[in-house]
Amino acid sequence: MPDLNDPEVVAEIARLHDAYERALVANDVGALTAFFWSSPQAVRFGASEQSYGATEIAAFRNSHTPVFTDRRLRRREILAIGGDAASVMSEYTQKFEGRPRVVRQSQVWVRFPDVGWKIVSAHVSTLSSARTCTAR
Amino acid sequence: MPDLNDPEVVAEIARLHDAYERALVANDVGALTAFFWSSPQAVRFGASEQSYGATEIAAFRNSHTPVFTDRRLRRREILAIGGDAASVMSEYTQKFEGRPRVVRQSQVWVRFPDVGWKIVSAHVSTLSSARTCTAR
Repeated sequence: MPDLNDPEVVAEIARLHDAYERALVANDVGALTAFFWSSPQAVRFGASEQSYGATEIAAFRNSHTPVFTDRRLRRREILAIGGDAASVMSEYTQKFEGRPRVVRQSQVWVRFPDVGWKIVSAHVSTLSSARTCTAR
Repeated sequence: MPDLNDPEVVAEIARLHDAYERALVANDVGALTAFFWSSPQAVRFGASEQSYGATEIAAFRNSHTPVFTDRRLRRREILAIGGDAASVMSEYTQKFEGRPRVVRQSQVWVRFPDVGWKIVSAHVSTLSSARTCTAR
């Protein structure tokens, strides 16, 4: 089985995850697209849509202008799976239409020999609750 | 780098994912707990909560009685990452309080030499939309 928790992999993924976050907040579509695996098998579940394949993911990025207010990482757990794969589970607080929200993000990263680390799958959701929905 | 898409791994994960789904719909808490990695590093983001570590995940299972009506798998993408890891991205339709909902589920599986395949991280969310929330 793959060794878990290689500290060099964890540090590298933390650095990449920070860079992804900066690209996200800046809505740098080129950078965001480049962070994902350029494959029909890449999958991204966003808060309000599902995108299958790099083409759909890029089309979503180009059609969408997210606005993040007071976005802050409040927890992040990185699991290195061998030397070339990792799972990242993270939580953010941010404001949406002036109200506080909790956003959860999960990503699976794989290191490719030619292009380096890429996100092969990702899932983003807003923590649902009666209060959150009633507030909309 | 790990080879991707090993068909034997994909088939094994499909079989396990089907078994997980049966345990979920039956609310077989023992089976559901056993599908997850028994580690403080296991993470599960549910629709309405986050659980960190096997103890929190088991406590959530024991406190929660989900009811699934007309739940159907509508899409599933399995990516085998080497021989001992996989990402599963899936979508379900189900009814909640009589209204149709789309639920997205993502899981990362790792094969351990002693206990076999376990879910090391998972994320479940309901597709959010103004309509969905207004309907609550």
